Amino acid sequence: MLSALKMLLLLWLSVSSFGANAEPAAASAVDKVTSNALYLNPKLPVSARVKDLLSRMNYLEQLAQTRSYGGVLGYEASYNYTFLETLNAPYGGSSASFGTYSTNCYLSAKVMSAVIANTTKLNRFHIPVITVGDSVNGPTLWNTTLFLASLSMSSSWNIPLFSEVVNAISLENRVLGVRWVYSPELDLAREPKFGRVGEMYGEDPYLVSRFGVAHVKNMQAPDANGTLRVATTIKHFIYGSSTAGINLAPMVGGINDFYNIYSVPFQAVIKEANPAALMPSYSSYDGVPMTSNVAYTNLFLRDELGWDGVATSDDSAMSFLHDLHKTAKDIQTAGIQALEASIGHEIGGTSSFGTLATLGNDPRVASLVKTAARRMLTLKFKTGLFENPLPDLAQINGKVRSPAHLPLNLNISKESMVLLKNDGILPIKTTGNLLSKVAVIGPLATYINAGSYAADDYLIGSAVLRGIEGIAKEVTFSRGCFVNNDTNVDAMIADAVKTAEAAELVVLVLRSSSSNLDNIGDVRTDGEFYDHADLGFPGPQLQLHKAIAATGVPIIVIISGGQAVEMEYAVANSNVIIHTFLQGDLGGEAVASLITGATNPSGKLTVSIPKYSGATPIYYNYLPTNRKAGICTPTDWQWPVLNSTARYPFGFGLSYTTFSYSNVQVSNYTSTSGNIVVSTTVKNTGSVAGQEVVQVYFGQAFLVIERPIKNLIRFTKINLEPGASQQVSFTIPVEELGYYVNGKKHVDADTYTFWVGSSSDDADLQSKLSLQAHHAL
Amino acid sequence: MLSALKMLLLLWLSVSSFGANAEPAAASAVDKVTSNALYLNPKLPVSARVKDLLSRMNYLEQLAQTRSYGGVLGYEASYNYTFLETLNAPYGGSSASFGTYSTNCYLSAKVMSAVIANTTKLNRFHIPVITVGDSVNGPTLWNTTLFLASLSMSSSWNIPLFSEVVNAISLENRVLGVRWVYSPELDLAREPKFGRVGEMYGEDPYLVSRFGVAHVKNMQAPDANGTLRVATTIKHFIYGSSTAGINLAPMVGGINDFYNIYSVPFQAVIKEANPAALMPSYSSYDGVPMTSNVAYTNLFLRDELGWDGVATSDDSAMSFLHDLHKTAKDIQTAGIQALEASIGHEIGGTSSFGTLATLGNDPRVASLVKTAARRMLTLKFKTGLFENPLPDLAQINGKVRSPAHLPLNLNISKESMVLLKNDGILPIKTTGNLLSKVAVIGPLATYINAGSYAADDYLIGSAVLRGIEGIAKEVTFSRGCFVNNDTNVDAMIADAVKTAEAAELVVLVLRSSSSNLDNIGDVRTDGEFYDHADLGFPGPQLQLHKAIAATGVPIIVIISGGQAVEMEYAVANSNVIIHTFLQGDLGGEAVASLITGATNPSGKLTVSIPKYSGATPIYYNYLPTNRKAGICTPTDWQWPVLNSTARYPFGFGLSYTTFSYSNVQVSNYTSTSGNIVVSTTVKNTGSVAGQEVVQVYFGQAFLVIERPIKNLIRFTKINLEPGASQQVSFTIPVEELGYYVNGKKHVDADTYTFWVGSSSDDADLQSKLSLQAHHAL
Repeated sequence: MLSALKMLLLLWLSVSSFGANAEPAAASAVDKVTSNALYLNPKLPVSARVKDLLSRMNYLEQLAQTRSYGGVLGYEASYNYTFLETLNAPYGGSSASFGTYSTNCYLSAKVMSAVIANTTKLNRFHIPVITVGDSVNGPTLWNTTLFLASLSMSSSWNIPLFSEVVNAISLENRVLGVRWVYSPELDLAREPKFGRVGEMYGEDPYLVSRFGVAHVKNMQAPDANGTLRVATTIKHFIYGSSTAGINLAPMVGGINDFYNIYSVPFQAVIKEANPAALMPSYSSYDGVPMTSNVAYTNLFLRDELGWDGVATSDDSAMSFLHDLHKTAKDIQTAGIQALEASIGHEIGGTSSFGTLATLGNDPRVASLVKTAARRMLTLKFKTGLFENPLPDLAQINGKVRSPAHLPLNLNISKESMVLLKNDGILPIKTTGNLLSKVAVIGPLATYINAGSYAADDYLIGSAVLRGIEGIAKEVTFSRGCFVNNDTNVDAMIADAVKTAEAAELVVLVLRSSSSNLDNIGDVRTDGEFYDHADLGFPGPQLQLHKAIAATGVPIIVIISGGQAVEMEYAVANSNVIIHTFLQGDLGGEAVASLITGATNPSGKLTVSIPKYSGATPIYYNYLPTNRKAGICTPTDWQWPVLNSTARYPFGFGLSYTTFSYSNVQVSNYTSTSGNIVVSTTVKNTGSVAGQEVVQVYFGQAFLVIERPIKNLIRFTKINLEPGASQQVSFTIPVEELGYYVNGKKHVDADTYTFWVGSSSDDADLQSKLSLQAHHAL
Repeated sequence: MLSALKMLLLLWLSVSSFGANAEPAAASAVDKVTSNALYLNPKLPVSARVKDLLSRMNYLEQLAQTRSYGGVLGYEASYNYTFLETLNAPYGGSSASFGTYSTNCYLSAKVMSAVIANTTKLNRFHIPVITVGDSVNGPTLWNTTLFLASLSMSSSWNIPLFSEVVNAISLENRVLGVRWVYSPELDLAREPKFGRVGEMYGEDPYLVSRFGVAHVKNMQAPDANGTLRVATTIKHFIYGSSTAGINLAPMVGGINDFYNIYSVPFQAVIKEANPAALMPSYSSYDGVPMTSNVAYTNLFLRDELGWDGVATSDDSAMSFLHDLHKTAKDIQTAGIQALEASIGHEIGGTSSFGTLATLGNDPRVASLVKTAARRMLTLKFKTGLFENPLPDLAQINGKVRSPAHLPLNLNISKESMVLLKNDGILPIKTTGNLLSKVAVIGPLATYINAGSYAADDYLIGSAVLRGIEGIAKEVTFSRGCFVNNDTNVDAMIADAVKTAEAAELVVLVLRSSSSNLDNIGDVRTDGEFYDHADLGFPGPQLQLHKAIAATGVPIIVIISGGQAVEMEYAVANSNVIIHTFLQGDLGGEAVASLITGATNPSGKLTVSIPKYSGATPIYYNYLPTNRKAGICTPTDWQWPVLNSTARYPFGFGLSYTTFSYSNVQVSNYTSTSGNIVVSTTVKNTGSVAGQEVVQVYFGQAFLVIERPIKNLIRFTKINLEPGASQQVSFTIPVEELGYYVNGKKHVDADTYTFWVGSSSDDADLQSKLSLQAHHAL
């Protein structure tokens, strides 16, 4: 586990450097806290408890609430004995994280429990550290339920199902003592070259907003008293299309793009779900680093949206102000800049907040630190941490990876797979000839490919090979090649060809690995730090596909990896393509279920698939002039032109049945209701039951600034028996049709067009209707 | 000449549509103008003449000064007899253009002369139309001197030589009656996928500024009375990195990118050379179309910079506000929006200004139209048009494509070629074996590939084949393939291989065609409308290269085309690579001169060459975080990562000699002088004379916003005999080190680093020195 070890070392270093930069421990002894102190009374409002506690704390104690500690765990969930010493205990600490993704959850929680119990005693007000962790597919520890990555989950377009999943993840986190998570990720996946696309919910602001709201509501799940089960962090404010797709690179845009595109999911989630925390991105925006962006991270969030949660830096982002962005002349200045931008919690790096220890006499800094501490303490009180600071060790066995969570995981896996091509061979009867002998081939056939920030146990669970073993009479396996390493490639491909030739069907599992796969000498190509100029198949995989295609045996291509992929060869040279993105540990079983028709596929793309690697961005909600390239048309050319449409558009995915749309209606807007109602009748016109994602898009005729032609405004997933039909209707407050110009909201009296259908592509939008709204909206 | 005909038809349509939209001709008869009217007195200041004339004109006459007329010429320089009728003569007109690039210049000027003479009489104040044309490589008519495209000329890095060229182009334009040109193009070539890169001067704001200033000064060349020889138009305000490189697509950015990057050349040229006109780009910027961008096209240009020239729309850009951007509900609204943004002259499209004919009673519109007319009339008076409105037909034979212009053209061709790779075979003695039998191969070996908006006579002049014929004993030719058409490709490649095998040396001319080459059935791939997802070699050209490489005969690759190219195969499989970009009609002779060593190459890249098509943008002046991609390094990967450095960096180009840099000094800044002086001694350490482009870059330690690590701040081209050395020094006013934050200039007391050397790459910057400027600058 070289990578985990390396991470641990980095975290240790960061902890040590805090020790070096901080003030020596104050001489004052630990106070006894009177048990009737207001802040200890759980019946009082959080604000009163925070006020009381803050008034008792000195500057250094308040400052300590801004500091996180990574690396609680040593190797294989052993106790990291240097941790207590470096925690600078007399002042207390803010948060602590495990520091590894490769340890058993029970053992890890046990160590964390001891750490919290011990460190809480050491500060005079007995303020516990809060356990915080990444949580994309679930808790980042072994033997938890390994759900799918965000991009896969969003491909289900099933908010109720996703809500159940987040609820399950929240329960597992809570039992393990993780009371604060660095998710959800609200970045817009508009740049396919970016390696982190798999962590996002897709390219559309509205879709991402819906998943974000569902995530925060179900993760935080406040009880009747408003106590949060697990606090959330909406991130990365703002990110998702850094220049050229490079991690940490600048975001480019102005105030209109900020208000109308990138900040949209943040606005929605803050308004609807009040997330406890927010993390600015590593990026600069129009040259201003988001970690010190007063205009957006302070004025916009605090004054305009009225949000009062904890803004936490990303890992090392505050020291990057000095050593990377070069906008702070030293790390102390970086710390002050971040405070001014209302950042109040620091993760990793050479600690900037640590250097503020000497500035307690500066009234401006002291006031900002007090505000930061107020927000952090509020988060702690709101999660009930003072009453109940420890993991529930006794519950881990029953509640984590519980029997109830496994079918949920399988369900969302099934709903997340996107069938992109089917020449008719699917579904395949289990009694049929094709399943009598199946060759499973490809470097990703035996791995759980779950993405960045998933628990690092990619060798457990049901990868595609195991799934196929469950449906086929005879299964043979040949790796064929490595993902991105041509060691022994000729012999491996020859073996794969031999395996294919002896089979009736090939299931070919290709693309990008999100784990290091160190043990087989392969090379990771997916996830954070893995940004690529090429959207094709890394290494010798295309060569493998060509060799297999030459055998003439039918091929089902399973694409595994968290990105849009240039798949033109696969489109022309396979019978079936299923994009599975980044599955959890039951992905193989879900693939098998789709192949036999036990599951009718219902996943839809949440990122557009380009025809050519370089023909990006390709997002469906382009501006009118984004596609205007003049006299060229793609059909004129062998050489790829840029104004090509997507190979597979946003919202697209095949089913084994067909659906018709009829009776599309758009109600007249009345100022009394303030709403528009869009309705349609959807009918299953095929011969098997199936789920359909009904999508509503809108566009406005003429605007003050250039805006997308089509915008997703509503969607729902419905289930219909063959021949059955259902009327679906959507209520849309008219304010949702508005947009911002220089930060000011416009809702124009104008003509609005609504499209209803099964994907964002014109050809899949069978009906449209215009609403004339000639009085001011 | 299908394309020319098509263009003509479009222009006719645009003229006709004006006729349809305009008011019927007014009933008032043509006045006699008294010969003592103030505006007719050339001795009065232009402002007084304009004031007088304006006071005499009615609204419709003023409005007519905003309207351009394309399509003076019919097929093959015949007279377009519908032209006079559609010119709406009683009100006069603003400007007229030839409407074709494929006619003889003498015949064209003759027709234009008649048009001007006739139409001037028809309006009561005898206001002439001004002849306007594109002018990149020279006048856009046949039999003029066909110089190089802008990207080639900038590769010379030779401002004095370029100034001579522009002076020559100006003379030819003036004699032909072209009194106003739609150049120079100040866009920054930061997006290699954009088809129009060849029209630009490169990726760096400072470099583009210097070429822009030289262009405007030498094209306008005011005489002692301030009369301009040929008025210029700086364009496209702002453009050059539209989304994905798609023509007309939006520019993305905020106020800081606008001030510090995109507008920099416009600021410089306006301040230093007062261009007569400016053209906003087709793009929107942060959602606001530049053609109606009040903040930038009006407030910035007029109020902040104090510039008072003519802002002209690009072709059809005003109607695009309605039918493409969708920010104007009809074309009349588009016209008003453009007027508010201080646009005062309209080209092409469904005329928006034409629809304003009915709004003469609207005081706001009338006032804006009057201002527009004032600016247009000022431009006409400033070019001496009232005194001397016609082409000098008698001078055309002596002054256009004159004997003086040909050596100038050859000189800049020689200086513009960039030698990227040389394994030592260059220079080749004319008596040597390699030149005893040369195979010239490739689809571009016989064509002048001069770029968009060059006169369309690509079959004249010295293409590479003719150049090689001048230096080799025996030359054979085989096309090898078409640029982007695989008709007959196997036979053509076989023939080329046979030709190569029989030769001692292959000169392989590849890449992109900027002409339609209709006559041989090839397909254009370069220039406006030709934006591409792939930066490699279109069509079967790579296949041809591979086949030729297999022969083992030494290969000189000549790259022809106006873009950065992914050339990894050529780097690994050729002896020599010369990028010629878009040459004029003596490019072949210049190539030959380089090969023999008669010319020592001195061209340097003005655009960075990426390693991989998708690894863009790749401009050298990236922000610190643009290249931060975390733990991956390119050497770890077979699959291209995004943070790769350039294959060949900005400023790079080989010579047959070598230069050393020593004694680099940076003077202390004193507030008395306001200057910093950077100096160095450059020595020719090789055995032949050569020219070196000495480049100075600077960076600032810590800034308020993120800014490039390195910025070009000075350059000069010097000539040194073997063993000779020269001290070069550069004076830099300290203000030039500043930058803008939210539109406000900052010049910080800080540490500045200066690099001096032969390219932008660290490895080529032998010395650096820091200037400490600890008092406020």
